[in-house]
Amino acid sequence: MSSPIITLTTDFGYQDPFVGIMKGVILDINPFATIIDITHGISPQNILEAAIIIDMCYRAFPPETIHVVVVDPGVGSARRPIIVTNYHCHFIGPDNGIFSLIYNSSERYNVIHITSEHYFLPERSATFHGRDIFAPVAAWFSRGIDISKFGDPISDFVTIATPSPALVNNKTLEGETIYIDRFGNAITNIKTQALLDLQSGHPLGRIRVMLRGKETPVKNHYSDAEDDSLYSLINSFGYLELFVYKGSASSRFNIVIGEKVSIVVI
Amino acid sequence: MSSPIITLTTDFGYQDPFVGIMKGVILDINPFATIIDITHGISPQNILEAAIIIDMCYRAFPPETIHVVVVDPGVGSARRPIIVTNYHCHFIGPDNGIFSLIYNSSERYNVIHITSEHYFLPERSATFHGRDIFAPVAAWFSRGIDISKFGDPISDFVTIATPSPALVNNKTLEGETIYIDRFGNAITNIKTQALLDLQSGHPLGRIRVMLRGKETPVKNHYSDAEDDSLYSLINSFGYLELFVYKGSASSRFNIVIGEKVSIVVI
Amino acid sequence: MSSPIITLTTDFGYQDPFVGIMKGVILDINPFATIIDITHGISPQNILEAAIIIDMCYRAFPPETIHVVVVDPGVGSARRPIIVTNYHCHFIGPDNGIFSLIYNSSERYNVIHITSEHYFLPERSATFHGRDIFAPVAAWFSRGIDISKFGDPISDFVTIATPSPALVNNKTLEGETIYIDRFGNAITNIKTQALLDLQSGHPLGRIRVMLRGKETPVKNHYSDAEDDSLYSLINSFGYLELFVYKGSASSRFNIVIGEKVSIVVI
Repeated sequence: MSSPIITLTTDFGYQDPFVGIMKGVILDINPFATIIDITHGISPQNILEAAIIIDMCYRAFPPETIHVVVVDPGVGSARRPIIVTNYHCHFIGPDNGIFSLIYNSSERYNVIHITSEHYFLPERSATFHGRDIFAPVAAWFSRGIDISKFGDPISDFVTIATPSPALVNNKTLEGETIYIDRFGNAITNIKTQALLDLQSGHPLGRIRVMLRGKETPVKNHYSDAEDDSLYSLINSFGYLELFVYKGSASSRFNIVIGEKVSIVVI
Repeated sequence: MSSPIITLTTDFGYQDPFVGIMKGVILDINPFATIIDITHGISPQNILEAAIIIDMCYRAFPPETIHVVVVDPGVGSARRPIIVTNYHCHFIGPDNGIFSLIYNSSERYNVIHITSEHYFLPERSATFHGRDIFAPVAAWFSRGIDISKFGDPISDFVTIATPSPALVNNKTLEGETIYIDRFGNAITNIKTQALLDLQSGHPLGRIRVMLRGKETPVKNHYSDAEDDSLYSLINSFGYLELFVYKGSASSRFNIVIGEKVSIVVI
Repeated sequence: MSSPIITLTTDFGYQDPFVGIMKGVILDINPFATIIDITHGISPQNILEAAIIIDMCYRAFPPETIHVVVVDPGVGSARRPIIVTNYHCHFIGPDNGIFSLIYNSSERYNVIHITSEHYFLPERSATFHGRDIFAPVAAWFSRGIDISKFGDPISDFVTIATPSPALVNNKTLEGETIYIDRFGNAITNIKTQALLDLQSGHPLGRIRVMLRGKETPVKNHYSDAEDDSLYSLINSFGYLELFVYKGSASSRFNIVIGEKVSIVVI
């Protein structure tokens, strides 16, 4: 039998011992768990970034994987700890909107307010629920304890607004950049389907990707770029992305999160 | 049966292959070991920082965990490799004071000078004992070899001074910041018990936390802060900590390690 | 029976979810794999750096380890995915020269062009073959599928030039720095054997290590340095290295990759 998988996504960084401590707590409760780091490099307290990252990732993991996500500026306050299941896999973290994109993209899901304190560490601090609540709950859950034992379902869970592209007119869709990766590629919130929808009304039209009033030519691969200027492509997650071949679109063209990107059919 | 756990704490960083190499050496000797990274982000050659980090962490791990800690500016010199056991878990590293806080906080412990060279890699370099000595010794130890086989007990092991708070008068305790975490929170060396002791002599007094002649109000949670000025709380390790809610106390108020913090009863 | 080991070496960094996604794909295909990070801190698109790192590492791992190395500026183009075996362990990545030092240092090896697309993910993107090709091929390979099932051997695989030291005259060998580690140590491409060869022609001569026309004294250990000036030693990989004790040779003396270092017998 294979080990249960617990993934960790946090804004704890790589200097401090906080992630190591969470792993110790998990292994103390379930020594058979396989613990996988997704990232601990979420910008401090950036709930939206964590929401985007976990949504990009979870489909790659096997069924029944338990994803612990801790970006938790309200730690110690009244915000609730929750387990979310979408019946494919499970998510554990604070109820602060961090799972908003899971709610959006799952056909069905159930949200449990974790109230069974006997699954927490016996002494609970006001500032480190990753250690005191989320890690031990994940470890107990990975031992096969039924989700219903952790608390009752709730329907008033928190969601946060996630930027969506908008139709400006029947020939123009306006989106924006929502994530800059390590290579300086700027990922927008415009999905392949939105491009197809726009084009379907104008079957003879040509799609243009516009940034700051200028067209950024569309390519199939990074290496199709003819030079080191700005290009766009559909990336591996099905999103429109701006890139510079062997360079950083972000630093070369000073593109930050929230930059407007338009799609125009001509 | 669950796997033996070996944790790694080093100043090797995340760019170089040194940590990966240590893992290869461990798995070559004990393929059943579970290897957990605590951090590789210790400031280069900062023995005190490593001592603080491993002391913050080890209690979270299951009994019999083997903690390898390598911050080793004297590598290749006469400094000794040691195994420390406190009969709950075990520590392997250089005898340069890196385990000073383990000695302070353990009820009893035993320090072994590792001299059995047949547990080292056959070719031993002058500059990378993480690979040549500490990783293989940890791997062999994790296979159940008795600690006495690695060498003889010593009592003249090295300790380093760790900053302790001092009573300035019967109403004032002076400590200092000893660690800045990723969020810019500044952790002091003042523990809950020291606060209670100070207050016990003045049952009607009120505790004030003073930094640079100004009071920093005490809160229960980060989110109890009313604004983005400096506050303090007892953190999840039982230490007094200075923080800015959703901000960095360190960068906003230019607080570095060694900053004096006083507790005054009025 | 122990788990098959898959290592990961990439330029994906520690912020983005790309490495986590690759791990999910691997575990979905082989939940029994042990996944070990070597580093994800390769400089973006630096094939030579990845070639040096994987060559420094692979000997430390047990036989049959599968090393996945993804630094892939040509992703999506015609460059081929390959498996390299040297009959001790195996390497999976793009055919862009990333395994050049493996070819140099292995007595014998075989290179397979991976063409069996049923071992890829069903939907394949143009920009993330780490997820779509390399991770799933590694996972299937780790389940014991014979290497011949993945494709046919090729002999026209790509190699990149790696800087080698050159004899300037029969008393002078000129090399250069090829890697700067986290501590600022500058590793050259001059190996112990090259030093011995040079000296063997001049048995009474003394070796001098010259940088910018000045001698850098040779020491056995870092801690043999008498002060904080520049010294050299033979490092734990058998290469000549320039160092500053408890300091950074790179930042103190502004040493970058490609700096000329000469060995002179006098």
